[in-house]
Amino acid sequence: MEETQNSKLKTQNYTEYYHKRTGLTVGVNKVLFSEQTPYQKVEVFETDTWGNLMTIDGMVMLSEKDEFVYHEMLAHVGMFSHPNPEKVLIIGGGDGGTAREVLRHFSVKQVDMVEIDEAVVRASKEFLPEVGAWEDPRLNVLFEDGITFVKNSIAEYDVIIIDGSDPVGPAEGLFEKEFFELCFTALKKDGVLTGQTESPWVEEYHSSIKQVFDALESVFDESSMYLGFIPLYPAGMWSFAFASKGKRLEETETFERIEKGLSEFGSELKYYNKEVHQGSFALPNFVAEIIR
Amino acid sequence: MEETQNSKLKTQNYTEYYHKRTGLTVGVNKVLFSEQTPYQKVEVFETDTWGNLMTIDGMVMLSEKDEFVYHEMLAHVGMFSHPNPEKVLIIGGGDGGTAREVLRHFSVKQVDMVEIDEAVVRASKEFLPEVGAWEDPRLNVLFEDGITFVKNSIAEYDVIIIDGSDPVGPAEGLFEKEFFELCFTALKKDGVLTGQTESPWVEEYHSSIKQVFDALESVFDESSMYLGFIPLYPAGMWSFAFASKGKRLEETETFERIEKGLSEFGSELKYYNKEVHQGSFALPNFVAEIIR
Repeated sequence: MEETQNSKLKTQNYTEYYHKRTGLTVGVNKVLFSEQTPYQKVEVFETDTWGNLMTIDGMVMLSEKDEFVYHEMLAHVGMFSHPNPEKVLIIGGGDGGTAREVLRHFSVKQVDMVEIDEAVVRASKEFLPEVGAWEDPRLNVLFEDGITFVKNSIAEYDVIIIDGSDPVGPAEGLFEKEFFELCFTALKKDGVLTGQTESPWVEEYHSSIKQVFDALESVFDESSMYLGFIPLYPAGMWSFAFASKGKRLEETETFERIEKGLSEFGSELKYYNKEVHQGSFALPNFVAEIIR
Repeated sequence: MEETQNSKLKTQNYTEYYHKRTGLTVGVNKVLFSEQTPYQKVEVFETDTWGNLMTIDGMVMLSEKDEFVYHEMLAHVGMFSHPNPEKVLIIGGGDGGTAREVLRHFSVKQVDMVEIDEAVVRASKEFLPEVGAWEDPRLNVLFEDGITFVKNSIAEYDVIIIDGSDPVGPAEGLFEKEFFELCFTALKKDGVLTGQTESPWVEEYHSSIKQVFDALESVFDESSMYLGFIPLYPAGMWSFAFASKGKRLEETETFERIEKGLSEFGSELKYYNKEVHQGSFALPNFVAEIIR
C-alpha cells in the first residue's frame, strides 16, 4: 500500500507528519471535498474507521468519530466555569461542533460564531452534517476576520471560545497577546475564555504555547492549562487554555453547576463529566514545565 | 518516501497499524536489533526524534523519549497506594523501566522481575541502556514464565506490577481471571496490583479490557481504571488497572505518602505528581462505558 504525504490525495493512506517523520496515518477511501480557499486548503475525506475527516492545510481538524472530545472539552470547561453564560462568542469553529456543545446550555441566548472561511462551514454542512447544530435560532454565523470582530466588541460576551487552527496561516494572530487583550475587553464582568493551544508533545509549538499562557497570565486575572485525549491530533494529547476576568468560580460552585447542567442536557456527553473537568487541569511535570 | 508496514524494515518509515488502516508512523534511521525469539519478534530502531525505539511483534513497546510516562504511571500509582511496599514483583517489564521507577522508593528491599524472554533484557541493556537500573542490588531478574512463577508465590509481595505486552501472543494469559486469582494469593495483606490494559480507543481490545476489570472486580476488594497520555501507543491514550487486597488507602494518606516520597527521590519525575495521580482516575464517559 502506498502512502500520501499531507494533502496529496493520490493514494489510499493519509499521513499527517506532525513532528519531523512522526505522523498519524489514516486509511482514506475517497476524497469528498478539496478546495484551495483564499485562506487555506480545506479537504474532507471518507476514512475507513473515523467516519468523514476534515483537514486544513494538511492538518487533521476533526473526524466524525473523535470530534466529541475536542468540542466537549473546549466548550463545557468554560461554560460551566461561568455563573450564567447567556451570550457566547466563538472565534473560528466553522465545523459547528463547538457551537453545538455551547447550545446545549439552557442559559444561552445568543452564540456569535465568527469564521473567516465560509468554505469550512460549507464543507461541514455537506460532509459533516451531524457535527453542527445549524438550525438553532440562537446561532448567528458571521464570515469575518475574528480579530477585527473582537476589536469592535466591548463588554458584550460572557464566554469567548477560540476555536482556530494551528499558529501558522490565518490563525497565527489568535496566539498573540494583543488578541487576548481584545478578548478581555470584549468580555463582560465574570467573563471566561477558553481556547485550543496545541500538543505539548510537539516541540515546535512550545514557544507558541508559552506565548499564549504568558499573555493570558498578564492580561487575565486567572489562567490555567487543561488537557484532553484526542486520538487524531498529534501525539493524542491536546492542551487548552482557560482564563477568567475576575476570580474564577469556586470549585464547589462549578461542580454544582456541572451536575445541574449535565442533568438538563437531553443526552449524556461522551467525554466530559465532573471528574474529567477537574482531572483535566492536572498537568504532568513536563507539560507544566513548558509554561513555567 | 516509502513506507514499511509493521516490522518489515526495508525503508525509512515504520508504521504500526493499530486499528485497520489507522497507524502511527515514525521515521527510522537504522535497525539496531532484530531477533525472532522463541516467543516473539524483538526489534530496536534508531529513530529520528524519539531516540531508540523497541517493538515486539511490530507493536511499539517504548522509546527513550516517551518511556517515562508509561513507567512512572505503572509504578508510582501502585507504589504510593501501598502503606509500605518492601517486596515487589514485576511480571514482564524486560526493558527495566518499571523496575527503575519502583527502585526509587526507599522502602523497597527486593524487586523480583520475571521476564519470559531474555532477548528483551539483552536488547534493552545494549540499546536502551538509560532505561533500566540494572546495577541496583535489590533487583532480582528471573527468566521464567510469569504465570508459573506467580503460582508458586503465596502471600509474598506487597505490590505486583503486570508489565506485559498486548493480549495476543505470550502475554495473553496476563489478561485472564485465573491469573488475577494467582496474583491475589501472591500478595500479602494490604497488597496492591497495577497493570497495563491497552488503549480504550481501539475497539478490538474492548473485550480484553472489560475481561480484566470484571476479573479484578470479582477477585480483589477494590479496583479502578486510570489513564495516561502515551504518544507512541495507539491513539495516545493508555489505560491501566489498579486493584487492592483489602480497602485501598485513604486519599489523604496516599497524598501524604506521595508528597513525602517524591521529596525523597533524587530528581523530579517527568510525568507523575499528586494531581496527576488523582486526575488519572477521572474517566471520560466513553471509557467508563467500556468497563461498566
